Amino acid sequence: MSYFSYYMKPDGELISNLNREDILSAYSSGKGLLWVDFLDLGDEDKKFIEEVFNFHNLAVEDFISPLIHSPKVDDFGDYIFLVFHGINYTSDSDVVETAELCIFLGPNFVVSGHNVVLFCTEAVKTSIEKTSRPIKKGSDFLAHELVDTLIDNVLPTIDRMTEVSADIEEEIIQNPQKTTLEAIMKLKRSTLQIHRVMVPQREVLSRLSRGDFPIIKRGTQIFYRDIYDHIIRISDLNQTNRDIADNALSTYLSSISNRQNEVMKVLTIVAAVFLPLSLLAGIYGMNFDNMPELKWHWGYFAVLGIMATAIIGLVWKFWASNWITIGNRRVQRIIDLTANPKRLKGYFDSIIKPKKE
Amino acid sequence: MSYFSYYMKPDGELISNLNREDILSAYSSGKGLLWVDFLDLGDEDKKFIEEVFNFHNLAVEDFISPLIHSPKVDDFGDYIFLVFHGINYTSDSDVVETAELCIFLGPNFVVSGHNVVLFCTEAVKTSIEKTSRPIKKGSDFLAHELVDTLIDNVLPTIDRMTEVSADIEEEIIQNPQKTTLEAIMKLKRSTLQIHRVMVPQREVLSRLSRGDFPIIKRGTQIFYRDIYDHIIRISDLNQTNRDIADNALSTYLSSISNRQNEVMKVLTIVAAVFLPLSLLAGIYGMNFDNMPELKWHWGYFAVLGIMATAIIGLVWKFWASNWITIGNRRVQRIIDLTANPKRLKGYFDSIIKPKKE
Amino acid sequence: MSYFSYYMKPDGELISNLNREDILSAYSSGKGLLWVDFLDLGDEDKKFIEEVFNFHNLAVEDFISPLIHSPKVDDFGDYIFLVFHGINYTSDSDVVETAELCIFLGPNFVVSGHNVVLFCTEAVKTSIEKTSRPIKKGSDFLAHELVDTLIDNVLPTIDRMTEVSADIEEEIIQNPQKTTLEAIMKLKRSTLQIHRVMVPQREVLSRLSRGDFPIIKRGTQIFYRDIYDHIIRISDLNQTNRDIADNALSTYLSSISNRQNEVMKVLTIVAAVFLPLSLLAGIYGMNFDNMPELKWHWGYFAVLGIMATAIIGLVWKFWASNWITIGNRRVQRIIDLTANPKRLKGYFDSIIKPKKE
Amino acid sequence: MSYFSYYMKPDGELISNLNREDILSAYSSGKGLLWVDFLDLGDEDKKFIEEVFNFHNLAVEDFISPLIHSPKVDDFGDYIFLVFHGINYTSDSDVVETAELCIFLGPNFVVSGHNVVLFCTEAVKTSIEKTSRPIKKGSDFLAHELVDTLIDNVLPTIDRMTEVSADIEEEIIQNPQKTTLEAIMKLKRSTLQIHRVMVPQREVLSRLSRGDFPIIKRGTQIFYRDIYDHIIRISDLNQTNRDIADNALSTYLSSISNRQNEVMKVLTIVAAVFLPLSLLAGIYGMNFDNMPELKWHWGYFAVLGIMATAIIGLVWKFWASNWITIGNRRVQRIIDLTANPKRLKGYFDSIIKPKKE
Amino acid sequence: MSYFSYYMKPDGELISNLNREDILSAYSSGKGLLWVDFLDLGDEDKKFIEEVFNFHNLAVEDFISPLIHSPKVDDFGDYIFLVFHGINYTSDSDVVETAELCIFLGPNFVVSGHNVVLFCTEAVKTSIEKTSRPIKKGSDFLAHELVDTLIDNVLPTIDRMTEVSADIEEEIIQNPQKTTLEAIMKLKRSTLQIHRVMVPQREVLSRLSRGDFPIIKRGTQIFYRDIYDHIIRISDLNQTNRDIADNALSTYLSSISNRQNEVMKVLTIVAAVFLPLSLLAGIYGMNFDNMPELKWHWGYFAVLGIMATAIIGLVWKFWASNWITIGNRRVQRIIDLTANPKRLKGYFDSIIKPKKE
Repeated sequence: MSYFSYYMKPDGELISNLNREDILSAYSSGKGLLWVDFLDLGDEDKKFIEEVFNFHNLAVEDFISPLIHSPKVDDFGDYIFLVFHGINYTSDSDVVETAELCIFLGPNFVVSGHNVVLFCTEAVKTSIEKTSRPIKKGSDFLAHELVDTLIDNVLPTIDRMTEVSADIEEEIIQNPQKTTLEAIMKLKRSTLQIHRVMVPQREVLSRLSRGDFPIIKRGTQIFYRDIYDHIIRISDLNQTNRDIADNALSTYLSSISNRQNEVMKVLTIVAAVFLPLSLLAGIYGMNFDNMPELKWHWGYFAVLGIMATAIIGLVWKFWASNWITIGNRRVQRIIDLTANPKRLKGYFDSIIKPKKE
Repeated sequence: MSYFSYYMKPDGELISNLNREDILSAYSSGKGLLWVDFLDLGDEDKKFIEEVFNFHNLAVEDFISPLIHSPKVDDFGDYIFLVFHGINYTSDSDVVETAELCIFLGPNFVVSGHNVVLFCTEAVKTSIEKTSRPIKKGSDFLAHELVDTLIDNVLPTIDRMTEVSADIEEEIIQNPQKTTLEAIMKLKRSTLQIHRVMVPQREVLSRLSRGDFPIIKRGTQIFYRDIYDHIIRISDLNQTNRDIADNALSTYLSSISNRQNEVMKVLTIVAAVFLPLSLLAGIYGMNFDNMPELKWHWGYFAVLGIMATAIIGLVWKFWASNWITIGNRRVQRIIDLTANPKRLKGYFDSIIKPKKE
Repeated sequence: MSYFSYYMKPDGELISNLNREDILSAYSSGKGLLWVDFLDLGDEDKKFIEEVFNFHNLAVEDFISPLIHSPKVDDFGDYIFLVFHGINYTSDSDVVETAELCIFLGPNFVVSGHNVVLFCTEAVKTSIEKTSRPIKKGSDFLAHELVDTLIDNVLPTIDRMTEVSADIEEEIIQNPQKTTLEAIMKLKRSTLQIHRVMVPQREVLSRLSRGDFPIIKRGTQIFYRDIYDHIIRISDLNQTNRDIADNALSTYLSSISNRQNEVMKVLTIVAAVFLPLSLLAGIYGMNFDNMPELKWHWGYFAVLGIMATAIIGLVWKFWASNWITIGNRRVQRIIDLTANPKRLKGYFDSIIKPKKE
Repeated sequence: MSYFSYYMKPDGELISNLNREDILSAYSSGKGLLWVDFLDLGDEDKKFIEEVFNFHNLAVEDFISPLIHSPKVDDFGDYIFLVFHGINYTSDSDVVETAELCIFLGPNFVVSGHNVVLFCTEAVKTSIEKTSRPIKKGSDFLAHELVDTLIDNVLPTIDRMTEVSADIEEEIIQNPQKTTLEAIMKLKRSTLQIHRVMVPQREVLSRLSRGDFPIIKRGTQIFYRDIYDHIIRISDLNQTNRDIADNALSTYLSSISNRQNEVMKVLTIVAAVFLPLSLLAGIYGMNFDNMPELKWHWGYFAVLGIMATAIIGLVWKFWASNWITIGNRRVQRIIDLTANPKRLKGYFDSIIKPKKE
Repeated sequence: MSYFSYYMKPDGELISNLNREDILSAYSSGKGLLWVDFLDLGDEDKKFIEEVFNFHNLAVEDFISPLIHSPKVDDFGDYIFLVFHGINYTSDSDVVETAELCIFLGPNFVVSGHNVVLFCTEAVKTSIEKTSRPIKKGSDFLAHELVDTLIDNVLPTIDRMTEVSADIEEEIIQNPQKTTLEAIMKLKRSTLQIHRVMVPQREVLSRLSRGDFPIIKRGTQIFYRDIYDHIIRISDLNQTNRDIADNALSTYLSSISNRQNEVMKVLTIVAAVFLPLSLLAGIYGMNFDNMPELKWHWGYFAVLGIMATAIIGLVWKFWASNWITIGNRRVQRIIDLTANPKRLKGYFDSIIKPKKE
């Protein structure tokens, strides 16, 4: 059982590290603003919460439970129960995982709980101790601060994933390998994981910013709308990474086939060059009594000459008929123009001018 | 025909194993709370139900029918008819299957029926005999207990499927085989099966918790909302397993191609090394009269030397030109960073600091 | 022009095979219940219908037209025009096809039409002649009987498709062939065909059972709701078959690649064994004057011995390095557990027990 | 500038080929019904329209512009502006393209415009000159005639695409080629093109038939509903063609792999037969002094016999072990049953009988 | 800090390049129309905006922030805050990127901001200096001009992408290469990028044109509806390009396999021709004492003849059995008819004629 707590008295005095009785009296007074944050929730916390606060049984169970809950908002009249997800920075998993922040939000209290260390509670704690600004502006604003920091802390992970996807894009063209495929799969699953929590989160924030709950005051709704916009941004970036992962997968599969083609060509060239020549050597290795060429003085050297000519000729032919291809100019042009929109500018100017007249 | 029954009299007395007349009088009294549970429904049960209860013909047919019905709720005014699905733990199928629980829910009765043994009815029965709590709180709460236990019993299957998908993920990278593909396909179909019953189930619970039916009292609605949340959780876990199965399929297909590349390379190396040398041996096996090298004292050994040099040289060249690749450092870095979000922490700290100031 | 007709007089007398004048007077009387069923509609029928009934021109054109119409309901105030689809059991097509049943439903008449023989009209006809029950309960109930039988007659096709998909699943693992692919494609297109008519059909039945049309009386709505449930069941079964077809397609594609791998391995093993040995034989076939081994008494037998050793050694090596794989134990375990949920029971018990306490 | 015009005077007289002043006076009178149809719209037309009619600037620009506009309806109070798409039968493109028909529809006028020749305007023109029926029934009916004919003219293209898809289906099984792939891709893109215009068109017609616009009178709405049904039918047929194209693509890809397998098998059989025999010949071509077999009188013939036996034996073995497969009976059964629903009839009868009793 | 500004005084006089005090007084007067456009926003701008204008803090932060925001509209009562996206023509990225235009729109002011040079602000500036038309018609019309020009400037990029996709389509059939795949991937990601901003943009414009915001006057709404239509057109063109990219990817993958087939066939033909002949040469190279053919006078030449016959025969056989295929007539017909809808005209005429009668 580990928790910290702050209480802003109605007269504006801020006290911290309240004991159980203080919390109970602050909570019951119905005045001021109480914030209690629980970390690593267990049975002891459950008992504490049940005895001190007047919360609905089912919400307390969700609050305590180590199982994952989807983001949601439950309305209990006097207070609402919120579940949000941020990145779990303590996970050892190969794939990005999310961590849960549960919040009871009432007129004069915010009770938050989480099973892993979250940067958002630390950041808000620091901010309160420095300026006490978040706790001065009411419980709905304090909850907003927690959720806002939680969501903003997803961005570094998204940025890292964007870097990884850029690395994959480079890797996949230059030197695709089995490990690249693993990286693609991990990236893809991470984007799906993030997508899966962002969709219900968007819905919850849309409801909070729309004024469905009287606890969120009119002036604070716009701040929740702001978190909503951040989630839209995160979803867009995440979706772009997913597109890159999908493209990389297609490219990877085609690169395996391409590589196989290269191997096949080497094999075919080797066979096409040496099998006929071996036949030639075999012919003159036959033991027929009457083989006039064998008597010829320059016969042997003629055969060697024919073989050398054949080798050179076949290699040249394979080269010429594009079996060993070199990127031709035409395609290069396509890429350059797609790649560099700056060049489109000239093109664009000629189009836009008739409009200006 | 096999059923068990409980009746909580209005005065709080609990009687069990009622015979037909008792059930009829308890049902008609309109008081107390009657629970009858039918297992393995047949024509005899149909007759029994038609004679004792006053249910609509179509609902009774759905109740009796061994066919699968989608989860639904039908409103008959005085009572509602519910169909829910849980895991069928008695099935021999290769793929996870669901079993149906049908419930008639009225003000003073719960009539449930199922064709396979379900743990939820056993659990609620045990709970009633121990504490009689579920039956004390009204018919809507008793029905909730049944549905809640039914849905929660899906979780062990989901957990097992998660274990299987983890095994598949390991298997697919180390040693993918035809049996792995079968496991992927079974996992995928199981997730689809679960998905297919969870979607309408969510809809039904949303309606039950929203107050659409007066039989579900206000205080009990939140409990149905709780089952709704469990279903969301199950759907999310199930979706993750499906993503893993999809990824594993892509990886499997690419691993077949990769393996083929390896085989091709071995073949090509063998051909590229031995076909030219065979030609060389063939040349000196020709029977021309005038082949000066054949007279040379060290000719034979020179040819052997050339052959040995060629073999060593070609193998070295194939090695050097990456035909037998070893994972390069760069890609490894990508994976490590994706895999271990802990390392992102440092990165994250530098990002988050400007915010705190 | 082929039709049959029934008329239940207001006094309960049932007459059949009415001629044109009888139909006209029964229809105009506005009393009793008239049912006329047209088969294989043509221009003559059109004229007949236009002269006798007072239907809207556009609806009559849809009724007559041999073109396929999507399921729909059109409200013309006094009567409604319904289009439903069942299985076309007379089609010669490789893919399941649907047949149309058009119904004009008014307060005292049901006029149905179809271009192919449908079992539903036969069944309702038989039922009327035996008990006259369907025609006693009003026009909305009679129309329900037709639609209900039509939809239920889809089930045998679905069952057959389920059997086919089970056959495909077995075939695809044991011995996939080009004809298996054809069967998969036909199954897939059949499921799509059924899906395409069931979606609008569901919508139409939802409207009929909701009370949007006063012609459907309150008491009959629940019967239309019952057809709605049947459609949901059919759609679910159909979707499962489609999943199986999709899985089978993936398995088929991977099995082709797997088979190619097997072929490649045989080729590579053959080449890797015999090309080096041929070189050895070639070397001792060279005609150098000074080749000391050739003089050795046991030289020939030594070479034979080396060759035999090499063959045995290489085959053993390919075997050992898993080129000819045997399913390893680990994967087998995965499959068994996925396949047989019964085994999950023990696992499940240990999970569920803490809940019961 | 090219246009034709008709004016039905309030007294029922029909005049055609009005000049500018006639059009202006007919339009301003607010009586009778004026139809002007513009083909191949240019700046001159714009000037003409701006001077004569009182239309909103933006709608006129859409009307004139050669760019493609999505189907839509814009409400300008006194009149509505409609954009519909039909098939562009004058296009040279490899893929089916659509052509635009813009209509201004007011109480006493219809002004239509299009950049390519459309059969619908020709057809309505002919119909007016013959019977003047379309122009007698009001502006909303005249517009309906234009749109109805436009949409119905999509059907020949759909029918042609259905024929093409049937050809592709046959081709893909018998002899798939690179050109078949091109045909699949063109078919697929054509279906997508049609799908893309049909979706908004359906939406527009749904609004027109719902009574959203007072210009469409109650009695005419049902005619717009009829066009709506035609679009649904076109969409369904189009979707079926798209399914066929998708299936054909999968089949094509697998057929390439299958063909490669066949090639590989030939290669492997050739290598497996001739490499070992070449070794045998090589062994007896070695020049060891002590090779007893060489002295045997029948040695040569024994070797020839061994070789012949080996060739026959290996070919027989490859045949027996199914490398050259012949469709086995079991799969054939699957196909036959899928293919021919008629055979399901017997099966169906046994299922349906219990129902009839 | 870089900005330009215009102020249309209530008396119609236009002044430009206002300093801070002028802007402040113009803004506070509540009369006339003020337009300020900020480029390359930084902290200095933020301070300026905060001091001069009375905007909500969160909107100002979005306005200043260099991060990407999704298109949106926020209602602040007196003014609305708009975010739109156009093409970023200054980006060096390989993939089309979008640039943001933020607009504060109030009754007498438009404050716009963007981090990259946008052609739309330049174009509107030029237009104001020439005719002052955009600024005369009110703030909602001025904002419309900006957004309209921004969206219209997407078209040149779409046109360029359409050209690129046409190039890819040609390339993919004639000579697909690794660089073609890169071009496909870039095209695909560009279409996704454009799709991602167009979807919310459409939603915003739908709300602006619907009259949700009183700042947009009734007469101007139709102009926003016009932009909405442009976005629909852009989305349609973009979607077509995406379809082409998807098709090209499938074609590319199949072309790799096809090419591999060609390589395999060459290899197989070489092996099938030369391995048997080498065996033949090997046989007559054996050193058996008793090989009667060796003594025959024409033996050697007979063997040469057999070899030549075998080579010619095998090549002819491979040719005949279609291993080297030539496009057959039948498929060509399919393509031609798909490709050229003109030919459908005759077919169409015969269909349409019965309609005309």
